[in-house]
Amino acid sequence: MKIEILAVGTEILMGDIVNTNAQYIAKRLADVGLGIYYQSVVGDNAERMKKAYEIAFNRVDLVIVTGGLGPTKDDLTKEIAADYFNKKLVLDEEAYNYIKEFFLYRNICMTNNNKKQAYFPEGAVILKNNNGTAPGCIIEEEGKILILLPGPPREMIPMLEQQVLPYLSKYQEGVLKSKVLRICGIGESTMEEKIQDIIENQNNPTIAPYAKDGEVTLRITAKASTLREAEDLILPIEEKIGRRLEGYIYGEGETSLEEVIGDLLIKNQLTIATAESCTGGLLSSRLINVPGISSVFMEGVTTYSNASKVQLLKVKDTTLKRYGAVSKETAKEMAIGVAQLGNADIGLSITGIAGPTGGTEEKPVGLIYIGLTIEGKVRVKELFFKGDRQRVRQYAVVQALCWLHRELNNRK
Amino acid sequence: MKIEILAVGTEILMGDIVNTNAQYIAKRLADVGLGIYYQSVVGDNAERMKKAYEIAFNRVDLVIVTGGLGPTKDDLTKEIAADYFNKKLVLDEEAYNYIKEFFLYRNICMTNNNKKQAYFPEGAVILKNNNGTAPGCIIEEEGKILILLPGPPREMIPMLEQQVLPYLSKYQEGVLKSKVLRICGIGESTMEEKIQDIIENQNNPTIAPYAKDGEVTLRITAKASTLREAEDLILPIEEKIGRRLEGYIYGEGETSLEEVIGDLLIKNQLTIATAESCTGGLLSSRLINVPGISSVFMEGVTTYSNASKVQLLKVKDTTLKRYGAVSKETAKEMAIGVAQLGNADIGLSITGIAGPTGGTEEKPVGLIYIGLTIEGKVRVKELFFKGDRQRVRQYAVVQALCWLHRELNNRK
Repeated sequence: MKIEILAVGTEILMGDIVNTNAQYIAKRLADVGLGIYYQSVVGDNAERMKKAYEIAFNRVDLVIVTGGLGPTKDDLTKEIAADYFNKKLVLDEEAYNYIKEFFLYRNICMTNNNKKQAYFPEGAVILKNNNGTAPGCIIEEEGKILILLPGPPREMIPMLEQQVLPYLSKYQEGVLKSKVLRICGIGESTMEEKIQDIIENQNNPTIAPYAKDGEVTLRITAKASTLREAEDLILPIEEKIGRRLEGYIYGEGETSLEEVIGDLLIKNQLTIATAESCTGGLLSSRLINVPGISSVFMEGVTTYSNASKVQLLKVKDTTLKRYGAVSKETAKEMAIGVAQLGNADIGLSITGIAGPTGGTEEKPVGLIYIGLTIEGKVRVKELFFKGDRQRVRQYAVVQALCWLHRELNNRK
Repeated sequence: MKIEILAVGTEILMGDIVNTNAQYIAKRLADVGLGIYYQSVVGDNAERMKKAYEIAFNRVDLVIVTGGLGPTKDDLTKEIAADYFNKKLVLDEEAYNYIKEFFLYRNICMTNNNKKQAYFPEGAVILKNNNGTAPGCIIEEEGKILILLPGPPREMIPMLEQQVLPYLSKYQEGVLKSKVLRICGIGESTMEEKIQDIIENQNNPTIAPYAKDGEVTLRITAKASTLREAEDLILPIEEKIGRRLEGYIYGEGETSLEEVIGDLLIKNQLTIATAESCTGGLLSSRLINVPGISSVFMEGVTTYSNASKVQLLKVKDTTLKRYGAVSKETAKEMAIGVAQLGNADIGLSITGIAGPTGGTEEKPVGLIYIGLTIEGKVRVKELFFKGDRQRVRQYAVVQALCWLHRELNNRK
């Protein structure tokens, strides 16, 4: 089956936003062995959209459209689809009730143009949207399939994963099985060097590294005629990689660093408190991501000013004067102070210079200190990250979590 | 002139990389008033590439191609272009010498297939590449223009900026000027209803709404023969929209909600402290985004557990028992408590149920209370958001910032 991904939206066409949807969909379809032949983008213009449908169905069997399902007048995707397939638009009562509930629930007034979002080409399969007001749909007609998905990634991605991929599984040839290994505390290129020979000598399973925000994932994908066969292909490669990357793999599949840490804290009945300066709450917000964390997360504080470091965390005035707010000594006292404040077993602190200003010759932008105390024992790490403010902050948080994970893991 | 951007490369098509080139080129061309009508992506396949050229030139006058200029056998862009225009490929001596020098300079051996990079369709204008071995080129033929650029952004971008944009300046018609209004505290569809007649009755300037993570932007774009004229077209529309959306527009152009708030706090010499439960530090981390915020941001605390709400924020035990941690009363005491803790003029608190679990009939997932105290006066808002944990948290933070902004703005 040949597939085209068609993005609708003037904001993508004009370059206001990057078309990450096309990349996500292409990657996920490729993962399951479905072949993308074209990607295209067209603006919110009825005539050109219809023409884009025609071109697409001239060259492929399945067209996946993103965008243009909103409530406004320039959202035309369904209307043009109905026109293209010569179908009426009909109100779907279930979708309409869902949209009404969505507004009722949020205690805001539903405007009349939201009703438009409950109309679909006759006979379409409706795709529920649990994250917004725009349901998607699938239209099958004479061997041609048209799938309409909403534009916002947070609505599109769950719809693709939970409804579209299962729907398309009948078109896959053979079975594709992926296993994702989650890695932290090692850079992408260093990791790749360690396993380069394994990657190069493999084509089934394939091994694909992917780096994002200071973490690395390795996706091992096998193709076989049965699931069991595919799993049998993955296992020896996974074990081989596991030995090479010992201590760096923190999890498998759909998990996150904070989830793994949360589980370890709960299992070991260890409580934690966090103190942050330049990261401003990003560390605590990642830990609070974990359902059930409240039993071990005592508190988090953002002490950006020196005054609050002294007042809340009992960092010594003399320490701040002698070594500065960004120093090993301050990171150490912050970790100890927040553990005491929260009456926690573990205190984790971050202080640093995220930039763009505030750096000096001696303490440049990107300099980060992480303090960690576990049951009275305290240590500090000095790290340096290159990049803009956001990147420095994000990397600092990942490294703090990485370090904590390794310490917790070693207690097992 | 109608323009299409065509990316060539299997790695983009399959989703291994995001097509940031298309976004960059589109944005830069739109900036100078050139109109993008389509974007498309095709793999490294001769037949499909030729077909893509045909489709493109059937609907536009100028096609900008990125990728496929490398030295390997699957780099086919120039070859297919020559074929499409029925031209021979000829060696360009100057380009050839440049490539030879490129390797000499880096002290690495030039492989024979790099010579391929010095061949171009006869009559093409060569575009120098100062950052790699792949020169680009421009082919003009019977009113059709084909511009071939290398795929790597660090080679493509300078070539576009220094050679392609100057070349295209003769095709620019007039000047395009955009103004972006940033809006919060109102949904996209409600906002659009308020200004629907303005949007509908306008085509110069055009008005384009765009929503993301609980905020909305409106882009007003005017086309005219001079910048001044374009600005004169924008002004009355901007004023008209400003009256309709009074209180919702927080800024213009490249700014953010937290930046505007930071400026207002600093200008009014008001200090702030934040207390968060389910948002876990996301609110404080947004405020800490603002350079210079340290003079007014006293501290932020994440009090996820009841114990820490009592201990740090002096929320009353009886309040938690009688009304629960997610209640108007708790939000109120959190706001007051954190203002006292941080000795701040303003206390801003968020408590709620972000999900996926923890909801009840009476207090469902998505229920959020925001508490705000400014110089002793305290109020609480109750809100509902639908969506996953991340979305609920993000919307809660945006709404808290929105509310704070409105209050600060009203003091002016």
